[in-house]
Amino acid sequence: MTNPYPKRRRAVLAELQRRNLDCLLVTHPANWYYLSGFTGDSGVLVIAPGRTTLITDGRFTTQAKQESPGVKLQLQTGALFASLGAWLKLQRLKRVGYDPEQWTVAQLKALQAVTGAKCRLIEAPGIVESQRMAKDPQELATLRKAADLADQVMQYAFTLLKPGVTESEVAAEIEFQMKKRGASGPSFETIVAFGERSALPHARPTSKRLRKNELVVLDMGVILDRYCSDITRTVFVGRGSRRIREWYRAVQNANQAATQSVRAGITCGEVDAAARDVLKNSSLDTYFVHSTGHGLGLEVHEAPRIARGQPVRLEAGNVITIEPGVYLEGVGGIRIEDDVAVGVQGSEVLTRISRDLIEI
Amino acid sequence: MTNPYPKRRRAVLAELQRRNLDCLLVTHPANWYYLSGFTGDSGVLVIAPGRTTLITDGRFTTQAKQESPGVKLQLQTGALFASLGAWLKLQRLKRVGYDPEQWTVAQLKALQAVTGAKCRLIEAPGIVESQRMAKDPQELATLRKAADLADQVMQYAFTLLKPGVTESEVAAEIEFQMKKRGASGPSFETIVAFGERSALPHARPTSKRLRKNELVVLDMGVILDRYCSDITRTVFVGRGSRRIREWYRAVQNANQAATQSVRAGITCGEVDAAARDVLKNSSLDTYFVHSTGHGLGLEVHEAPRIARGQPVRLEAGNVITIEPGVYLEGVGGIRIEDDVAVGVQGSEVLTRISRDLIEI
Repeated sequence: MTNPYPKRRRAVLAELQRRNLDCLLVTHPANWYYLSGFTGDSGVLVIAPGRTTLITDGRFTTQAKQESPGVKLQLQTGALFASLGAWLKLQRLKRVGYDPEQWTVAQLKALQAVTGAKCRLIEAPGIVESQRMAKDPQELATLRKAADLADQVMQYAFTLLKPGVTESEVAAEIEFQMKKRGASGPSFETIVAFGERSALPHARPTSKRLRKNELVVLDMGVILDRYCSDITRTVFVGRGSRRIREWYRAVQNANQAATQSVRAGITCGEVDAAARDVLKNSSLDTYFVHSTGHGLGLEVHEAPRIARGQPVRLEAGNVITIEPGVYLEGVGGIRIEDDVAVGVQGSEVLTRISRDLIEI
Repeated sequence: MTNPYPKRRRAVLAELQRRNLDCLLVTHPANWYYLSGFTGDSGVLVIAPGRTTLITDGRFTTQAKQESPGVKLQLQTGALFASLGAWLKLQRLKRVGYDPEQWTVAQLKALQAVTGAKCRLIEAPGIVESQRMAKDPQELATLRKAADLADQVMQYAFTLLKPGVTESEVAAEIEFQMKKRGASGPSFETIVAFGERSALPHARPTSKRLRKNELVVLDMGVILDRYCSDITRTVFVGRGSRRIREWYRAVQNANQAATQSVRAGITCGEVDAAARDVLKNSSLDTYFVHSTGHGLGLEVHEAPRIARGQPVRLEAGNVITIEPGVYLEGVGGIRIEDDVAVGVQGSEVLTRISRDLIEI
């Protein structure tokens, strides 16, 4: 396994040069991990030509030395942004890029209070996020494994769906199985929603018990070697009515249409429309209350957004979710979600467990 | 169980009146839950005299109706902050409070772009956080239960510490036990650190196997009915050397001194100093690389900070952690952490499992 960080930092430096910036301040943990391997919770990574510096506090210095050998370590003294400001002045870094989507108003003010006119803080949003969209072969291999593990745990989860079990019990067992099989944990709080509760797209597990003739939405993902997966399947406990089966088929067709549309060059909005159009044909589009998907990688929600009108074009190496769903208050919800990697030609669906309606 | 939300909103309104603000924009999930019971992941809660409004999207409307009966629901159209801006103008709310520590620079700009000069956005940091520091009897009862559950799981975790087991296995079993016993999950990623790795205050569990004559740091907490606990114990596998025992005793004494100092009226800095002074007497203070503790409630880290020089005075109803530790690179770490509620007189230690060195 080669050390991927110097190459990634060089790509950032090239972008800084294009924007005429002296450095980039990286404050988002997924971004500093991507650029340096540092897994600590607090600090600022400063990317500048010829030197990468991590400013962090005493809790993280030991691990920073282990994890980020090519990075200069600067011990934080006092508050983080004051410490950063003093250091920037000392280094005579003047045109300083930061991400307005990740910095709070208070952080920006704290830094400006120290640097004064010595630094010009310049908005530079999404530089690292854009880079992270294009996964390298090593990242793709890890994402494949993370999806595969989610498939396995989903298959196992079906065996837990016996009348009388609670949502919380199923969720606890799912997350335990993830870790037992090598995941560091779930990539988000596992959704196990029975019956009417499945109409809540973001339901949290409760003590509700499973009954016969209920829909079950299982939405889960693992973090494996720091990369995320995200899969949803919908199960019916009993034999679904004609209406349930029709809805299910519509969602399944929407999932398939969007997945088949995925290829390099298509816009994210077009992929979203592919799912939405199928549901519209069944007059179910008004019950599809969220967007079709999102990027997947070091974070379970990252760029790009697969949503209405999004003009971003997919490129080879992007990994996204495709997750159409319909939600009927008082009845329940149906969602089918897969992880899809964009190839040079066509795409590769990473989650491979059957999408047919499972009746238990 | 009475509905606590209207009373809390009235307290916010009283503060808004003092600051001459027309409304407060609440964007932090723990804060909007505290003020309305809403458990969704996205939205803005607007607190204004005579009306509380939640602006959120279609994913959360069903649950918002169930969870926040006294709150007016406003369906978001388009991007959240643009939608918020249009609504604020319509409502003629002019002096608008927001929290610069929770708003990103981009969010503030997106809102300002819509409202223009029609609204004045005024910094109003920490209004809800200050209120949340003073726990009511119902909150204290829940925090007691959350601490009690952490005690139970800690006791169970000791039985898992057999040579050959990995950090990840122990962490997975700990988090499973939490959920099995009624927690919705861990309040943070459980720390299980063996041997030298225990010198990393924020170690993540790895595949490292437990050997004899190693220190083990176990740092965990549960979320129970949305409230957090946080406890650390340090175990030695074998019989500790004289040096280990001396260090352990110093940390134990520091924990005790700080805990005993807790009472209404003392400053957070004085509590921190109580722990730090004991370690200084044993020349171990330079190895105590973090602050002594933090507030605990709906979030596992909340106000106040128990750190050097903090002038905030504790009040009855505050709940904090006391967690001194020492970390020796290449050797290991020792940390002992309890949850402590500030009473009208003295304090109540919520985590009650023994603090003596456990040798397994």
